[in-house]
Formats: sequence, C-alpha cells, structure tokens
Amino acid sequence: MVLKTDPTTISCPIARTITTIADRWSLLVIREAALGTTRFSDFRGRLGIASDVLTDRLHALVGQGVLEQVAYQEEGSRTRTEYRMTEAGRELHVVLGALGDWGTRNLPTDIDSGVRYRDASGRPVHVAFIDADGRVLGGDEVTVHRP
Amino acid sequence: MVLKTDPTTISCPIARTITTIADRWSLLVIREAALGTTRFSDFRGRLGIASDVLTDRLHALVGQGVLEQVAYQEEGSRTRTEYRMTEAGRELHVVLGALGDWGTRNLPTDIDSGVRYRDASGRPVHVAFIDADGRVLGGDEVTVHRP
Repeated sequence: MVLKTDPTTISCPIARTITTIADRWSLLVIREAALGTTRFSDFRGRLGIASDVLTDRLHALVGQGVLEQVAYQEEGSRTRTEYRMTEAGRELHVVLGALGDWGTRNLPTDIDSGVRYRDASGRPVHVAFIDADGRVLGGDEVTVHRP
Repeated sequence: MVLKTDPTTISCPIARTITTIADRWSLLVIREAALGTTRFSDFRGRLGIASDVLTDRLHALVGQGVLEQVAYQEEGSRTRTEYRMTEAGRELHVVLGALGDWGTRNLPTDIDSGVRYRDASGRPVHVAFIDADGRVLGGDEVTVHRP
C-alpha cells in the first residue's frame, strides 16, 4: 500500500496531502486522469508503469476518494472498470497547475510538450496566491507559519 | 538517489516537476524549509526522518536547485552547513499552498494545526487559477490538454 500513515493523525494540512497523494506514481496517475485517461490499459500504456504498481496506486487513490470506479461495457466484451476523478480529485487540478507552472519556469527543456491549463478561450492560465478579496498576491506577499 | 530520470528528457512540465521533487520525503523537507528550518538536526527532529534518507533528499534538492548550502559557524563550534531555499525553491510556495488548501478541504481532522499561508495582515490566503488578466477562475473554467 502507498498510504502508510492515517492522514487524520497529522495536524498540518500540507503534510496530510503530501502523505496521502504525493509519491511520484500517484501524482503521475492523477495527471493522467486529469488529462482524461480512465482505463487501466491506457494508464499503463501512457505512463509505462508496471501493472502491479498501477493496481496499487489506483486502489489507493480510490481509497483516498480521489478516483472512483465505474463499470463500463463495450459491445461483445465483458464488463470492465474504469477510473474517474471524483470532486476531490478534480480539486487537485490546481495542484497539478502549480506543478506545471514550476516545471515550465524552473525545468525548461527544448522538448516541452505544451501541456498547459487553459481558459475557455484557449489562453494559458497560471496558479497564484489570492487573498480573501480575490486579489492576486506575489509569492513575497505571503508567509506560512507554524502556529 | 531520488532523481531517477533526467527531467529535461520529459516533455510534460507537470511530469518534469513530479519527477524532480515529488516524493513524500522530498516534499516534507521542502515544507520544512518553507517554514524556516535550515539545519540538518532540525529537519531530522521535526520530521522524524532517518539521517540517511534526509541526507539523500537534501543532496538531491541541492542538485535540483531547490535548496542551497550555506556555511555557518556558532561561536566555539566548527563550521557547519545549513540549507536555504533558492529562488526556485521559494517558487514552490504556491505548490505547498495548493497542497495545504486541498488537505484542509478534503482531509479534515480535529487536530488541524492551522498551518496556513497568510497575507501581510495575517488573513489566510488561497491558491487559485488566474487568467492572463489576473482574473480568478473556478476549477471548472480551466481545462488541461494533451497537445
């Protein structure tokens, strides 16, 4: 199992999320689900992940409420299971958006795929801190405190 | 070593960042550095992390340009090394902020520490998608595409 610690025993909300979803394969599975992949064979093929690791991560993400299993059946085939993002899973888009912004700025490469979050008109969007009034804040305008 | 794949060989900027920084201990070390911890013994004590794992993650984060080593000397002691966030490291605050928002909403607990990003007046801030004009977008107003 991926989940080693019950997150409800961790007081810091950042650490709870890290403990729950943050290992490399879990996040890559979440990215793939965010891009629309739902089927085991498609996750496996697109990520080049071993079947046993993929099974483990999908089950953990279902257990954590990030993905849900939905039965589907193609004509002439047996019923299969696909994996769809839950509402909690969709709330991870902003985490993926922040990871993408950071990689675009800090890990530049000549082969960038252009995977980007975009608005309805197709323009790239970014992730930022906003205050209670919806004003965008620079990174130097916010601080994090240990209470 | 944590870093198994050269991130510049990965076209997706989200996957580059995941491959570079996203394992549980690396992210917890980054969170600890964001909270102001700089010394090996403080990272070890606050995170309850084994020394060899901490050494590995600190070296990897230095190699990835997230932390930098700075020499310091207390009176009567030998010179030691501390670890400070680089500019690229500080740009990870928004990733941690997004992880914290998600944990607060989706992993509620009675023992929440109240670790939060705050603005200059102490009010909690949040992380959100913004468009090119700085307008805040809901999660359902953005899409991510495989080009």
